[in-house]
Amino acid sequence: MRALVVDSGTLSLRDEPQPIPAPGEVLIKVTLAGICSTDLEIARGYAAFKDILGHEFVGTVVAGPPTLANKRVVGEINCVCGRCDMCTSGLSSHCRRRTVVGIQGRPGVFAEFVAIPERNCHIVPDTVTDSEAVFTEPLAAAYQILRQVKIDSKMNVAVLGTGRLGILVAQVLATSPGRLIAVGRNPRTLDLLDRKRIRTSTVAEFAQWGEQDLIIECTGSPKGLPIAMRMVRPRGTILLKTTCVEPAAMDLTPIVVNEVTLLGSRCGPFSEALSALARKQIDVQSMITRQLPLSEGIAAFALAADPQHTKILLTCNA
Amino acid sequence: MRALVVDSGTLSLRDEPQPIPAPGEVLIKVTLAGICSTDLEIARGYAAFKDILGHEFVGTVVAGPPTLANKRVVGEINCVCGRCDMCTSGLSSHCRRRTVVGIQGRPGVFAEFVAIPERNCHIVPDTVTDSEAVFTEPLAAAYQILRQVKIDSKMNVAVLGTGRLGILVAQVLATSPGRLIAVGRNPRTLDLLDRKRIRTSTVAEFAQWGEQDLIIECTGSPKGLPIAMRMVRPRGTILLKTTCVEPAAMDLTPIVVNEVTLLGSRCGPFSEALSALARKQIDVQSMITRQLPLSEGIAAFALAADPQHTKILLTCNA
Repeated sequence: MRALVVDSGTLSLRDEPQPIPAPGEVLIKVTLAGICSTDLEIARGYAAFKDILGHEFVGTVVAGPPTLANKRVVGEINCVCGRCDMCTSGLSSHCRRRTVVGIQGRPGVFAEFVAIPERNCHIVPDTVTDSEAVFTEPLAAAYQILRQVKIDSKMNVAVLGTGRLGILVAQVLATSPGRLIAVGRNPRTLDLLDRKRIRTSTVAEFAQWGEQDLIIECTGSPKGLPIAMRMVRPRGTILLKTTCVEPAAMDLTPIVVNEVTLLGSRCGPFSEALSALARKQIDVQSMITRQLPLSEGIAAFALAADPQHTKILLTCNA
Repeated sequence: MRALVVDSGTLSLRDEPQPIPAPGEVLIKVTLAGICSTDLEIARGYAAFKDILGHEFVGTVVAGPPTLANKRVVGEINCVCGRCDMCTSGLSSHCRRRTVVGIQGRPGVFAEFVAIPERNCHIVPDTVTDSEAVFTEPLAAAYQILRQVKIDSKMNVAVLGTGRLGILVAQVLATSPGRLIAVGRNPRTLDLLDRKRIRTSTVAEFAQWGEQDLIIECTGSPKGLPIAMRMVRPRGTILLKTTCVEPAAMDLTPIVVNEVTLLGSRCGPFSEALSALARKQIDVQSMITRQLPLSEGIAAFALAADPQHTKILLTCNA
């Protein structure tokens, strides 16, 4: 099968053997896959990953148990042991022995087929289209925020960064109470959020420094956290979504002096994301700026890194 | 009066005018003062502070209201407005208009006299000696931890760094439940904690990476946080006490991937610290390695930076 493979910071389209599902796994024919910032980072060498890239997808089960056979599914990315201290204490997404689809120890979804554990699959409701369902994984990561922090109507909440993840996060937070503002640099994505009636500001025009109760840092850049530290009020919370390849010079003194809580945040609940998509509560369609066949995967990665584009999708079985 | 003044990274002993208390302030004749790592940092230029240095002290009120006159007192360091949003919401230590004794906008205690707000004073119980009372401010900062995190008997708790603050923090945490270990590099201070029956380990010999529920990072070095990030379990907490002059290259990816909570921590409750000293629950006496007159303040600073020494005290009215 055709697949997009990363090796030592180089991306290439290759012929790879079709995966053979292990016991407890299903084989999925990938319909659509999405390129996210983590993929761009891994393609540059992050996590020393050498395998088929990609973890956001929707597909059809072509080999699996009757409950899943021929169903349209999305899949959680953490493949867990179920027996370690994390798994047995309800924190299986932090499984000590986990592999992660397209990120760590396991091939990803930028391919015609992928095999993942049966228990990772979620059936996509009929009312959710393929191009919506492919956003389930990042949207779940956005919903994770609501599990980590309690937001009330008196809180000043800022989403910092209006890229792929920031747009989803801003929409999710717009469903909760709190005085929301999305702060970014890209006029195009700020405009997209404006049209969704979400209050926005450029970083340059932002005027409420030191007054935000909660900031969601999803800039994808090491320059984000220092800005978030200026935005947050004393004893406020910064929820950190950004991971970066390169260590960056950082002065964390404001965290200490202002007794700020910095909270790391990663994967989230697929069921909540799918249910929001089914309710049409979150608009993902307007984020798709291009859809290319897997055979043009290299070009698709170049587009995904261009600020003129938001979400680039790959059709994996054209 | 004689005073130890910092200006643009240079420390000098000078003759300064005796302070005149503003309305609501008392004048204190300083008996003893302690040198802490923040003083060493400020002396190197941190915070661009240009005034009399020092904020840990015990002294006698020589001009003030009858309730305080001639009393032995220690003093909280944040001098607050009482009217801003922080003050009126019970977070006066984060007052938007605060000055901080010997740190920000207000002369410090490495002098014969200091003037501070009356409401910052705490009378020292008779059972607490001067050389114990001078530890009230850093000990309060250690007690702040127990206000920020709830520790139960099943938790693995590590104090990282066994300098001046780490020794106090380890002793405070030894009074709470939790499986405590103090981790440091200095054989002398590790031995001091061993003798207090606190379990210790060198960083090199530490064996429980990724298993600590709570880490108190008080190394005073930018090298501490990366070690703490390796010690903490997924979804664990790192309480950050360290502030550093220089921005340091930092990769915060483990915070995000392991969904760690990083909690900044600064000043704490004086009443709890004084009460612990009165109960003789915390031993500070063994931390004092030298006591010098204010006139030898420059030499005292050199000793305070030497790992062969722990607490250096200054007698300010010899």
